[in-house]
Amino acid sequence: MIKAGIIGATGYAGAELVRILLGHKEVEIKWYGSRSYIGEKYASVYRNMFQLVDDSCLDDNIEELARQVDVIFTATPQGFLAGMLTEEILANTKVVDLSADYRIKDVKVYEKWYQIEHKSPQFIGEAVYGLCEVNRGKVKKARLVANPGCYTTCSILTAYPLVKEGLIDLNTLIVDAKSGTSGAGRGAKTANLFCEVNENMKAYGVTTHRHTPEIEEQLSYAAGEEVTINFTPHLVPMNRGILATEYASLKKIRQADGSLQYPDYEQVKAVYDNYYKDEYFVRVLDKGVCPETKWVEGSNFVDIGFQIDARTGRIVMMGAIDNLVKGAAGQAVQNMNLLFGFPENEGLTLVPLFP
Amino acid sequence: MIKAGIIGATGYAGAELVRILLGHKEVEIKWYGSRSYIGEKYASVYRNMFQLVDDSCLDDNIEELARQVDVIFTATPQGFLAGMLTEEILANTKVVDLSADYRIKDVKVYEKWYQIEHKSPQFIGEAVYGLCEVNRGKVKKARLVANPGCYTTCSILTAYPLVKEGLIDLNTLIVDAKSGTSGAGRGAKTANLFCEVNENMKAYGVTTHRHTPEIEEQLSYAAGEEVTINFTPHLVPMNRGILATEYASLKKIRQADGSLQYPDYEQVKAVYDNYYKDEYFVRVLDKGVCPETKWVEGSNFVDIGFQIDARTGRIVMMGAIDNLVKGAAGQAVQNMNLLFGFPENEGLTLVPLFP
Amino acid sequence: MIKAGIIGATGYAGAELVRILLGHKEVEIKWYGSRSYIGEKYASVYRNMFQLVDDSCLDDNIEELARQVDVIFTATPQGFLAGMLTEEILANTKVVDLSADYRIKDVKVYEKWYQIEHKSPQFIGEAVYGLCEVNRGKVKKARLVANPGCYTTCSILTAYPLVKEGLIDLNTLIVDAKSGTSGAGRGAKTANLFCEVNENMKAYGVTTHRHTPEIEEQLSYAAGEEVTINFTPHLVPMNRGILATEYASLKKIRQADGSLQYPDYEQVKAVYDNYYKDEYFVRVLDKGVCPETKWVEGSNFVDIGFQIDARTGRIVMMGAIDNLVKGAAGQAVQNMNLLFGFPENEGLTLVPLFP
Amino acid sequence: MIKAGIIGATGYAGAELVRILLGHKEVEIKWYGSRSYIGEKYASVYRNMFQLVDDSCLDDNIEELARQVDVIFTATPQGFLAGMLTEEILANTKVVDLSADYRIKDVKVYEKWYQIEHKSPQFIGEAVYGLCEVNRGKVKKARLVANPGCYTTCSILTAYPLVKEGLIDLNTLIVDAKSGTSGAGRGAKTANLFCEVNENMKAYGVTTHRHTPEIEEQLSYAAGEEVTINFTPHLVPMNRGILATEYASLKKIRQADGSLQYPDYEQVKAVYDNYYKDEYFVRVLDKGVCPETKWVEGSNFVDIGFQIDARTGRIVMMGAIDNLVKGAAGQAVQNMNLLFGFPENEGLTLVPLFP
Repeated sequence: MIKAGIIGATGYAGAELVRILLGHKEVEIKWYGSRSYIGEKYASVYRNMFQLVDDSCLDDNIEELARQVDVIFTATPQGFLAGMLTEEILANTKVVDLSADYRIKDVKVYEKWYQIEHKSPQFIGEAVYGLCEVNRGKVKKARLVANPGCYTTCSILTAYPLVKEGLIDLNTLIVDAKSGTSGAGRGAKTANLFCEVNENMKAYGVTTHRHTPEIEEQLSYAAGEEVTINFTPHLVPMNRGILATEYASLKKIRQADGSLQYPDYEQVKAVYDNYYKDEYFVRVLDKGVCPETKWVEGSNFVDIGFQIDARTGRIVMMGAIDNLVKGAAGQAVQNMNLLFGFPENEGLTLVPLFP
Repeated sequence: MIKAGIIGATGYAGAELVRILLGHKEVEIKWYGSRSYIGEKYASVYRNMFQLVDDSCLDDNIEELARQVDVIFTATPQGFLAGMLTEEILANTKVVDLSADYRIKDVKVYEKWYQIEHKSPQFIGEAVYGLCEVNRGKVKKARLVANPGCYTTCSILTAYPLVKEGLIDLNTLIVDAKSGTSGAGRGAKTANLFCEVNENMKAYGVTTHRHTPEIEEQLSYAAGEEVTINFTPHLVPMNRGILATEYASLKKIRQADGSLQYPDYEQVKAVYDNYYKDEYFVRVLDKGVCPETKWVEGSNFVDIGFQIDARTGRIVMMGAIDNLVKGAAGQAVQNMNLLFGFPENEGLTLVPLFP
Repeated sequence: MIKAGIIGATGYAGAELVRILLGHKEVEIKWYGSRSYIGEKYASVYRNMFQLVDDSCLDDNIEELARQVDVIFTATPQGFLAGMLTEEILANTKVVDLSADYRIKDVKVYEKWYQIEHKSPQFIGEAVYGLCEVNRGKVKKARLVANPGCYTTCSILTAYPLVKEGLIDLNTLIVDAKSGTSGAGRGAKTANLFCEVNENMKAYGVTTHRHTPEIEEQLSYAAGEEVTINFTPHLVPMNRGILATEYASLKKIRQADGSLQYPDYEQVKAVYDNYYKDEYFVRVLDKGVCPETKWVEGSNFVDIGFQIDARTGRIVMMGAIDNLVKGAAGQAVQNMNLLFGFPENEGLTLVPLFP
Repeated sequence: MIKAGIIGATGYAGAELVRILLGHKEVEIKWYGSRSYIGEKYASVYRNMFQLVDDSCLDDNIEELARQVDVIFTATPQGFLAGMLTEEILANTKVVDLSADYRIKDVKVYEKWYQIEHKSPQFIGEAVYGLCEVNRGKVKKARLVANPGCYTTCSILTAYPLVKEGLIDLNTLIVDAKSGTSGAGRGAKTANLFCEVNENMKAYGVTTHRHTPEIEEQLSYAAGEEVTINFTPHLVPMNRGILATEYASLKKIRQADGSLQYPDYEQVKAVYDNYYKDEYFVRVLDKGVCPETKWVEGSNFVDIGFQIDARTGRIVMMGAIDNLVKGAAGQAVQNMNLLFGFPENEGLTLVPLFP
């Protein structure tokens, strides 16, 4: 049984961490950090936790916390952890950071897209990008895990095998993503009021969303060359769920008879299956089935489907996740499981809630 | 490890049974019965179950099923089980019936409200009404459990302690209930289309809803006298959740000083606490807190709050459940746990999903 | 053509006034008052108005405004108008106040329920309660109209004929009301975020909601005796719409043969029809039809239905409105039409939007 | 005052025609055709029309109807009108067809994508594709107008000026579209139940949706060359609204100094403004503003915005409409206005409903 602390426990991602960890056999939450609610019962902030969590909220004294627990989750605003992290903290505990502070290796790229000065670039190098299906080995040995963003997790895993295997023309990759509103957090903003979101659909952050360089960086590693994409997020009137619809031109590949041909359905499917057949959390759907966010709601699954368009030579790849689970808290727990040698799906065998 | 079969596995309540039983350590589902989908993969009907359930749907041969499993859940239309049940079946297995067939002791009342002839009234007598918090002892010894309706579970538990203790005038009891749309089932009806329900609110079945006599019967047992109520269900644009708002005039009670006075907040609260303090699934909320359906979504909890109105002498009682869990499949599993001597909350420690 | 000014033009009710007045042949909006957005294009705050409204927002200098326009609408927080109103203003212009400042005749009741000191009680006497169907004659001659609340409009009109005619026992009247979220306004509050409201249902303000004394006062006038009720509002995950479900015991009435009997369906229907047959905006539905909020969305209609329960002797009355139209801006325009002698439904023949 | 008849008056598009035509000064609806509801009061099928429409539904005898009215709207399944249309009908009346029967000039393309044999290809030639902003002149002289599809209207108008002016590389055009659920019609299908759509997001008809060839054909006319695109529709949990997000690589254009350069924001904006500045229904939004479906709900507006991505050389174009108005009934009325010489926006100055 390990001890965990959460900084930012009263945001939506923090609350989802609590929900998941309450069902985890090997973890006990010792610290519900929340600057805004210090001294208040956690269950008075999230009443779904009534009679399940008796603790009150504590401050965000991460140095003290590091001495008390085996792992710290930081579900905090950009720049928070970068401003607090010390060698001493990392010497005392493991850190899984749900913010973007250590996701991007090039500090200039981070500072440009986030418009924040990075206060502790010295830790960027050792931080492991916690996309478990890709970096499993490195995560196991890490002290500091940069938990991927919600859009990025979905966008990357949906395209990863084809990018890695060189099946698509990287210059043509476009990611059109749609997210439920919990991704916007629990801050009280007019734009996120029920009446503004309900019965409405819009794109936002077009060409400027901060998850763009994160997707590009990871796909570049996979491709072995620099990838530049268009990424367009949209706000959908639902609480949870991300759907990524991704477009790219297929590349001809060498066939058994030596000729160069576009890959067909079976060939693409085989590539996906090859990469994901042993991945508990990635479900490559059957032919003709498009993923739906509701089928993964509340779970850590990524559902992936695709369709080839012979008319245009493009492939349409689609991926669905629950943004708060595989896109945030669930993946953070998956990383924790890797860090401590627990079964990777411990606490994460949550069955999707339908309807 | 026991074996379970589900007849009606492809309705919403049946699918929720699957979701819950997949997380139950002591049960294995051996039979996914669904007359409409015989031979089809269960996971092609409920794609959230992809890679979690590999079975295909079977027919509803309950006699054969009874020989194979330890417990049968029937999540079937009214009259189905009544038309099939035999002594032989009950000799071979336990039955938890999620339909209304054995809930009402007076067969004439059943036939009047449901407009169906009851085909096996001989089993009504032995059937135990499976409201666990009230009939726990009887359920443990039963062969046939009549699992309560969704509205009824919420409506009864919200008022039960005050009815039992004689704190309210039973002639004044009014239940105004609001339900998510999954209560209407998965049948393809125009009235339940997204565009008809979304952005809409209505009452239905006013003065005629079939859960009325069920609530009345159970509250009559509690009161020791016949109770007649108004029950008005409403359809709410959400998937899950029932909220019951109940009104009744308080009765004066004998106070410590011998005088007759209306009970105050603390006295009413003490009654609720006394009845429910040891009930894992019933959460009596703190003073001033009104239940919200979202706080119990996906869980087997019943959240209860109340407010006394000194101006009118009435009490407003409020209860919230997830209609598919405590209002159907969750309570069915709770009954199964009682039947087989498992911990009552085994498989049911699901933390509510928020947001 | 008259000139109108709006103070509070950037709240939801203010914006709905703009929407309606843009389609009104006899009115020109000259002043979009909004303290928060002074100098900003109105259409940048409500982008649905792009290319329809070119004006920018002005301050709330009501004295100046009174010199420029024929009618002022105040869609402002409680206490605002009471703190500003002067005899000079009323000498210069008509005022339709969408706040509660002049709705309640007894200033002590106002101050108790609103917890505000009333700054200009001298105008309470002359203010006319603008429930057009009830006070049409008085409104026509008024300088100051107190536009009714959303819940109150729906609650009163649904019960009014039966209260007035003495068909129901006033001591038993209970109003269980359900509202869309736009009634909570456009202020940025966590409780009104999409993720908090969506897939959720709750009661709030139980026994304490401020619309209670307003309903009671108006029904008391109708009854000729003091009426005390229970009023319970609920928040529903939809943008617009109020549904009021009202319960009361029927009273026996003298029948044609001289006997005292409970009124039957036809007798109650005749009373409703008698009161509302010439009312353009009140639609008494056919037998067995329950009102639905979607059927009045975007329109100024009130849909009313009822059901008698012979088992309990109660009647269940149901009324539905669009809270922003008949419950706010639409009724305000209806009052304006009365004040200026326009056809009462001018600008208000909006057909409900379905789906 | 002209007389209109509607075949298919009880579908969502038919009902929207009724809503709009009720507010049109020059039209009287004489025929509410609905095969499924013959003899039933129209207002009992669409209760929002209670006391507004007194007529009952009639059959779909289009020959008889053609003798009685000046214009027929057919809001019917694919193939219906093609199977009924005769020269005699067109000699007697104008026809605005909301189905796809006469939208596509090449009957083989129609038959391939719709999998229906076309029964009256002889009328395809004379049918005018009723995208008013593009074909205004031809519509005015037509007898038979093929009213565009919902997705197509939005997709085409969003890209039209840039396609026409050669600013984008047509081989790179991708349309990712998102639609509210009313586009799926009022048929009772499980997939369109509230609980299946709510809290869910999915793509469907990927690479195979029937609106694809319609978009391609119209853009090909604009481009003067054959255009092949990817079009991906998605289902969004809202009643109304389509958002099209369109991607294309910009082409270098000859600049004032003679050089070839990519167009900048102002140049692209000028093209849009040039095409749409006199179009009442097309609103080109200000710099940086992305369209939202809620801002056009209930109205005939098309809101268009765009963003240039210098990193990838692509432009992201976005358009929003109400699928039932500009995407169906509103555009049909706009076409009718052109056919009869009414002001083009008569009956269509509906202000968008927000929230």
